Order: sequence, then C-alpha cells, then structure tokens
Amino acid sequence: MSRTGPAGGALFISLEGIDGSGKSTQAQRLAAHLAHLGRDPLRTREPGGAPGAEEIRRLLVEGDPDRWSPETEILLFTAARRDHLERTIRPALAAGRDVITDRFADSTRIYQGATRGDLRGLVDDIHARVIGIEPDLTLILDMDPEVALTRGLARRSGEDRFEDFGLAFQHRLREGFRALAGEYPDRCVLIDAGRDADAIATDIEAAVARRLR
Amino acid sequence: MSRTGPAGGALFISLEGIDGSGKSTQAQRLAAHLAHLGRDPLRTREPGGAPGAEEIRRLLVEGDPDRWSPETEILLFTAARRDHLERTIRPALAAGRDVITDRFADSTRIYQGATRGDLRGLVDDIHARVIGIEPDLTLILDMDPEVALTRGLARRSGEDRFEDFGLAFQHRLREGFRALAGEYPDRCVLIDAGRDADAIATDIEAAVARRLR
Repeated sequence: MSRTGPAGGALFISLEGIDGSGKSTQAQRLAAHLAHLGRDPLRTREPGGAPGAEEIRRLLVEGDPDRWSPETEILLFTAARRDHLERTIRPALAAGRDVITDRFADSTRIYQGATRGDLRGLVDDIHARVIGIEPDLTLILDMDPEVALTRGLARRSGEDRFEDFGLAFQHRLREGFRALAGEYPDRCVLIDAGRDADAIATDIEAAVARRLR
Repeated sequence: MSRTGPAGGALFISLEGIDGSGKSTQAQRLAAHLAHLGRDPLRTREPGGAPGAEEIRRLLVEGDPDRWSPETEILLFTAARRDHLERTIRPALAAGRDVITDRFADSTRIYQGATRGDLRGLVDDIHARVIGIEPDLTLILDMDPEVALTRGLARRSGEDRFEDFGLAFQHRLREGFRALAGEYPDRCVLIDAGRDADAIATDIEAAVARRLR
C-alpha cells in the first residue's frame, strides 16, 4: 500500500516536529513556493483536515487531558487520519495536487510512543491495516524544546492538550522525531529549525527540489 | 486476553440482534431478574456506555449516513468500545457486578461484515489488538426482519442511522447473527425472539442460570 513515489508528479509532504517548531509557518512558505513554481499545493493538517476528521479532532484536543486512554487516542487519531486520507489527501493527489500536511502518522508514532514505549507496535499495526500510505517526503523540524515550548505556549490556541505536556516530555518527543529520521532515511529529512525562517525555508525548498527532479 | 469464565462470579452478558428485536426490553427484564437473585447488575449499551464513548456515539449515529467510510466507522466503534471497556465494564466486573450490555463487539462484526464481507478480518484484528475480551454469555435475539423493522421504526429514537438500512440489509444481518451463534457456540445462545416477551425472558433466565451454576 505504501507509495513508492509521486503519483502523476504530485508530492505528498508532511511536516513533523514538536509544538512551536514552526511547522505552520514553513507549511505556508512551502505552499507559496510550490505555487510560484506553477504547482497547485493543498495545505492541510492533522488531526483534522476533513469535516468529519475535524469533529474527531475536537474530541481529542478539548476537555480533560486524561479523558482518553492512550489506546483510545490511537484509535481516534487513526479514525481521523483515515477520514482525512479518503476525503482530502487521496482526492487531491489523484487530481495532481501536491499535499502539504502539518502532521501525519509520524506524530501518532512519536507522541504515543513517548507516552508509553510499548504502544509503538500498536500504532504501526493499525496504521498498516487502515492507512498504509506514507508521505513521499517528511520534513522533521528539529528544535531545542525550551525554545519550541515558549513559542507553542505563546500561541494560545485554546486547544492546549498538546502544549500542556511539560519540558521533559518535549525532550522525549524531540528524541523520538530524531530517531524517526534515522529509521526512515529515504523519506525523512531532518531540518535544523533553530535558525531564522528564511534559512529553514531554503533547506526545505532544496529537499523538495530533490524530490521533484 | 479473552475471559475464560466469570471473574469473582460476575457475569459479562451481551444482547445482540437486529434493531427492533427486543434487546432493551429483555436487558431490563434480565437486570430485574438478577437483582431479584440478590446480584447487582449494571445495564449499559453500545456504542456508548461511558461519557467519552457516548460522545463518539453521537459522531456515529447523527448526521449523513454516508459521512464515514466503513473503515473509519470500525475505528470509531472500537474507540468507543475501548473507552466503554475501561471506564464502565472492567470496573463493574472488578467490583463483582454483572454487566448486561445492549450490543458489544459482535454488532461491529455483523453490521460491518454485512456492509462489506472483506471487513470482518479488519474488525477481528483490531478487536484482538485493543479489546480482547469477549462476553461470558451472548444472547442473540433472533427475529423475522419484517417484524423487527416495524418495531425499530416505531421507536422513533431520532438516532436513525441504524434503522435506515432497509429490509434486504436486515435479512443479511439476521443471517450474520445466526452464523455467529454457530461460530461461537460456547458463549452464544440463539433465542427465538418472535414470541411473547415472557417466553423470551424465560429462555434467557435459563441460559443465565446455566452460566451461574
């Protein structure tokens, strides 16, 4: 089920990293860059990215942080992802559009794995069963959690479950994302996100250019 | 993970069958019967049966019947079931209470399987991964769909996704439930639900008495 390359030239790109690492800013810049190249990128995000998936998102990000067990969370994230994939990602790729998503399956692998290491197998098994697809390119924005946490908390999104974990947890997430880059070297590119936005965008554009060749 | 028998004497009982087969009435009567025997039964239902699971239920039963694909539905049903299991069923059994649930995993097996036969394997795989437990006793209320459909439609619950399938689908469900009774003969008892409520209750009480011995 996994994609071995761009379908009809359309690229499926995910941005991953801890909260506050600048994913939204860079997704916006990358979309502008691809549009400038004459392409037709679609920006989306997880959890969410389709009307039903956004309703599932609300169950995940609002309310008491302990309202769901890690296993229930994995099922809800994967339900939202399946809906996102069916209603938004696959139709866009089939229409020849590049898809840029702020988070995809790697976030579930890393966040749930950082919560309890034994959950990674469950995430991967359910992913293989109902999602299958991986991005053509995963940009991992790597940043010092102290800096990222400050940015994340400064955002005041109101959906603060993900931003309420504390610094030790953010360090575990960072290490998880760095390890992921080593685990999937073909599709993952580790980007030093502790620099100014222009330098980061330049690295991202170079990584995308290599995929477009 | 599957229970091989009552834990501390507490029985986990599910009622299954097509809509309108009289599950709620019989669940109520069975609870009264167990209370009369000096036991402490808990009545619950799926999808739902815990605060979070009831929120997931609303996503499943309200809105356009085509809003979720069968795969997304399986994930949402299983997420609700995991929450129900953790928050309601396991604590009650651990406290020595009998649990009587109106539907459990068999409903997902049969409804999704009747929608698309190839989904049964997915339901069973995800069940084995995150639910594991089966009831000690599953009472399958077997009834002519013509009669059941009339009763179900007469209920006017407002949550009419499950009652909106049509007669041919209800026939497939009936056959599915009957086949299930053959597949799991140790825990399933097929009850002729086309009779008056007293006769059905008598059969159910006899099936429960055999499990209590």
